[in-house]
Amino acid sequence: MALSREELIRAVSAQMPAKRWKHTQGVMESAVALAEKYGADPEKADVAAILHDVAKYWPIAEMEAIIRDHNNRLNVELLTHDKQLWHSEVGAFVAERDYGVSDSEIINAIRWHTSGRVGMSLLDKVVCLADYIEPGRDFPGVEHIREQAHRSLEEGLIAGFDSTISLLLSQRRVIYPLTVLSRNDLIAQLKIMEVGS
Amino acid sequence: MALSREELIRAVSAQMPAKRWKHTQGVMESAVALAEKYGADPEKADVAAILHDVAKYWPIAEMEAIIRDHNNRLNVELLTHDKQLWHSEVGAFVAERDYGVSDSEIINAIRWHTSGRVGMSLLDKVVCLADYIEPGRDFPGVEHIREQAHRSLEEGLIAGFDSTISLLLSQRRVIYPLTVLSRNDLIAQLKIMEVGS
Repeated sequence: MALSREELIRAVSAQMPAKRWKHTQGVMESAVALAEKYGADPEKADVAAILHDVAKYWPIAEMEAIIRDHNNRLNVELLTHDKQLWHSEVGAFVAERDYGVSDSEIINAIRWHTSGRVGMSLLDKVVCLADYIEPGRDFPGVEHIREQAHRSLEEGLIAGFDSTISLLLSQRRVIYPLTVLSRNDLIAQLKIMEVGS
Repeated sequence: MALSREELIRAVSAQMPAKRWKHTQGVMESAVALAEKYGADPEKADVAAILHDVAKYWPIAEMEAIIRDHNNRLNVELLTHDKQLWHSEVGAFVAERDYGVSDSEIINAIRWHTSGRVGMSLLDKVVCLADYIEPGRDFPGVEHIREQAHRSLEEGLIAGFDSTISLLLSQRRVIYPLTVLSRNDLIAQLKIMEVGS
């Protein structure tokens, strides 16, 4: 890391409203707790959580420019989907470019924290689930996700993705296919674990 | 068609329990009505409806053998998904092989009647929606789908796919990705029509 943890926090928190920084602090707390509970690296979870929403309040045009200018590395197809999805991809990019994060586990956990992906790493799961259940979250169904998070990372994430998909259904909004593939993959992982246990 | 309509009905109805044949008769009725309302070919809708569940009660092993033996034409990836999805693919195949249906619109309407597809044809939409709303259907939410079907084929199908996806979420079952892609595509079609109107 090029910056100290305090410098990183100062730089990232300056890029979002106080309310969103409070959410980020909640994700830091939950991500470290989940990492400790499920055997991920708490320091990596902390850094990924600090940075996960770094681009959330960036101007749309700036996010779009980054995705277009780096279409050989970034997922340009995102531009045809909900803008809510762009900040994860851009956040992962700027974590590396602007904040000197070189650890690919941390970069990936930022990149996939909204949609998930097929074959989520342990750290991906921790950060994505922490984003759903951090103490400040107060949406219908969050308690169910918290309960499932006590059972396993996979059960927690399935409950989280279910709530996202249900919300999109009820609002007649497009569903990002990768979220469905991630959920399907987690169900398959649980089946394999059941067979193995 | 190699067979008369009566011969076709006799042959297909013999392959399923009376209750499922009653469902098929309902789909025939609804498909013809939707075809007339929305400008599809009612005769093609009738033939596709008669045949849509022809393979529904075939032994799993027989369906699997057909998909495997014709993996150059049929979607072999289906075998990794819910068996409920296999009968559409197999039904389209046997409609052609065993019942002399050569019209590709009819074959496609059978093939895609469960999952939908990106770029559904008018006849695809008619048969898929008729399968959701035929008079014998009595599942929670079917009235909402019937109401939406009066507005447009696309609104009806979105409501239908929403009910399927919600059911799979509630039962923690894998969601077939193409159903989500079909729903997304219908939402996009409606947006384009709104802009054009």
